[in-house]
Amino acid sequence: MKMSGNGLVIVISAPSGAGKSTLCSKLAQKLPNLYCSVSCTTRPKRPGEKDGRDYFFVSEKKFKEMIRRKELVEWACVHDHYYGIPRQFLEKNIRAGKDTVLNIDVQGALKIRRLFPGSVLIFVMTPTMAELEKRLRARKQDSDAVIRTRLRNARRELRFLPKYDYLVINDKLADALCELEAIVIAEHRRLAHLSPPRFK
Amino acid sequence: MKMSGNGLVIVISAPSGAGKSTLCSKLAQKLPNLYCSVSCTTRPKRPGEKDGRDYFFVSEKKFKEMIRRKELVEWACVHDHYYGIPRQFLEKNIRAGKDTVLNIDVQGALKIRRLFPGSVLIFVMTPTMAELEKRLRARKQDSDAVIRTRLRNARRELRFLPKYDYLVINDKLADALCELEAIVIAEHRRLAHLSPPRFK
Repeated sequence: MKMSGNGLVIVISAPSGAGKSTLCSKLAQKLPNLYCSVSCTTRPKRPGEKDGRDYFFVSEKKFKEMIRRKELVEWACVHDHYYGIPRQFLEKNIRAGKDTVLNIDVQGALKIRRLFPGSVLIFVMTPTMAELEKRLRARKQDSDAVIRTRLRNARRELRFLPKYDYLVINDKLADALCELEAIVIAEHRRLAHLSPPRFK
Repeated sequence: MKMSGNGLVIVISAPSGAGKSTLCSKLAQKLPNLYCSVSCTTRPKRPGEKDGRDYFFVSEKKFKEMIRRKELVEWACVHDHYYGIPRQFLEKNIRAGKDTVLNIDVQGALKIRRLFPGSVLIFVMTPTMAELEKRLRARKQDSDAVIRTRLRNARRELRFLPKYDYLVINDKLADALCELEAIVIAEHRRLAHLSPPRFK
């Protein structure tokens, strides 16, 4: 039985505070054939962040050069900072049969779906908005005003939920992780992703 | 977050010899919320079979009465024997939020999809036709002529593969079982099966 040779493009979106980054890195640890794409950004590095792990931190000049050279699959400008997905890593991975996770917002997710119609769109959310607020406050990272903005953004992003394939509720991290893993395993068995199987 | 209250209707089809029955019963052991529907039949009980576990063995008179009373969701006549899916068990289960596995052939699967548009269709197959033949011979249950018929039927059933959602290859039983389990877990997170979630 010949299997499709391409890896899956897996988009994970979540409001800030829902645990997306932790889930993505733990998922990559569990699934040896799955890799997380690292985005490029022009925003300044925050304390604790590492170049090449959290983002590739580049200058605005470099970023615009990457746009011009079509080195980004998708990019956006948010609050004067640029964010983009490097093309080479993604395309090389996919062709090599490696699953690749893109950790992007709803607008970016919809663009990826247009570019890669077979991509799998997963939305991660806390059980309630109140829980999201609680987690944002517990991080002690943002001011009240910033938290209010993040919650407003979360509500706006949730409106795009019907465009997604899956909704994973990150109540307990281990459960959410199991569900994400199951989604990846199941998607590999979907006939839509397999080249027409021939049994001899 | 309100979840959909209904259980999933999961159809598993496979050529004779691919290990469908074993997989179904093991899947039900692993997933406490999953139940296997037991079909009714008018064919004689074979050695080792148990009424109520393998089939409900009924007379033709009783079967036709069940058809008349609309007690069967779906039925078919194969080689002069009737086979049908009891309605009450399935509908009660689904309403109670229990996943229900129907172990039926391709024609039945397509009827179930029409009746339950949200049903999940899984095809189970051996890695190759040669392996299917090997397993049928190893069972020492059928004559050469019967085995040839089963292989011919398998080829015919495989033509319906594009109508299915998933293809699980039963090479190693434990792996196929994990994949089936992943499919059930993942399908529960599909937005298509969830009632519109509301985050407060």
